[in-house]
Amino acid sequence: MNDRLHQQIQFILEIDKLKSILRRSYLLNQERHENSAEHSWHLAMMAMLLHEYANKKVDLQHVLKLVLVHDLVEIDAGDTYCYDEDANSDKTDREQQAADRLFAMLPEDQGKALRSLWEEFEERSTPEAKFANALDRMMPMMHNYYTRGKAWREHNVASDMVLDRNSAMQDGSEKLWEFTQSLIEDAVEKGYLASSNKEGGN
Amino acid sequence: MNDRLHQQIQFILEIDKLKSILRRSYLLNQERHENSAEHSWHLAMMAMLLHEYANKKVDLQHVLKLVLVHDLVEIDAGDTYCYDEDANSDKTDREQQAADRLFAMLPEDQGKALRSLWEEFEERSTPEAKFANALDRMMPMMHNYYTRGKAWREHNVASDMVLDRNSAMQDGSEKLWEFTQSLIEDAVEKGYLASSNKEGGN
Repeated sequence: MNDRLHQQIQFILEIDKLKSILRRSYLLNQERHENSAEHSWHLAMMAMLLHEYANKKVDLQHVLKLVLVHDLVEIDAGDTYCYDEDANSDKTDREQQAADRLFAMLPEDQGKALRSLWEEFEERSTPEAKFANALDRMMPMMHNYYTRGKAWREHNVASDMVLDRNSAMQDGSEKLWEFTQSLIEDAVEKGYLASSNKEGGN
Repeated sequence: MNDRLHQQIQFILEIDKLKSILRRSYLLNQERHENSAEHSWHLAMMAMLLHEYANKKVDLQHVLKLVLVHDLVEIDAGDTYCYDEDANSDKTDREQQAADRLFAMLPEDQGKALRSLWEEFEERSTPEAKFANALDRMMPMMHNYYTRGKAWREHNVASDMVLDRNSAMQDGSEKLWEFTQSLIEDAVEKGYLASSNKEGGN
């Protein structure tokens, strides 16, 4: 086996670990937490089906690449819950270190390309990244709503936090943000989500 | 919410079930079986990284779409182990019924498009489908090899069955088939895989 294929295979084996990175979201059947690999697949399916709602016309292949790689750094850095302020304070450092190690496993051209995709996703600097990011914010709210707010309630999350954290969705898709806001309002009405929480999340 | 978005959201919720469809393959850490959603993500990553080895130049976006949707019918039909002859005898009927139900949930244009992708993958009628199919065959052999043949040994699978079942890989990528054959040979040498098994698999 040549060096290039060897490096690619080693990386493909390494990223099997993303299947063991657990998120706070539950599967809709509530049997277990979702992992970051299957979450990435679900976002890719959403991108295929919903890209007609992006604010600007997006290159679907590029959106697919962004969502497929966006969580790879969690292999080392773990999943950081979006409402956990302490964990978010050093998230960037942890993820940069993870990116340094992981992407260096690949042949240089591919390592640079994947790192660039991950940075673009994080920076939300393009229409594709804004739309991919909107999907990444939308999905956990759908999982929460359709499990009657299971993870929101466990983590003492309130609707003002959800609205504040996720309003950037509108940069990617005003239409999907409008839909998601209606879910949040309905979640408060149904008692899945507190309307405000002065103590903040955990 | 308009009817079109409503249908799309219902489908996106429905396919959460793919995360609970278990395959025979184990994760590389051997902690549990792999599910079909995270497997689909892993194939998409392989497609991004290995499409340079396809026999013919392939449209990467199309390969990504093929691997993302290729297992959706398992939501109703379950995963069919490739070495299980009995289960394979009615696989087509079970999967056609699943496709009828699932893809009808979507707006007509998208339902037709996804069904067409699934059929193309199954028929291996294009360079993209041949390559996607090669990845789908390659991955379980990698999982087996790097878990010292765990699933092969549990299901009494021998190398002649593996070679026979997977030689179609060469229609998608001679280069990756050559690599995979070297893994199989090495697996026999290391005792991860029996060289032949007259009783056949289970």
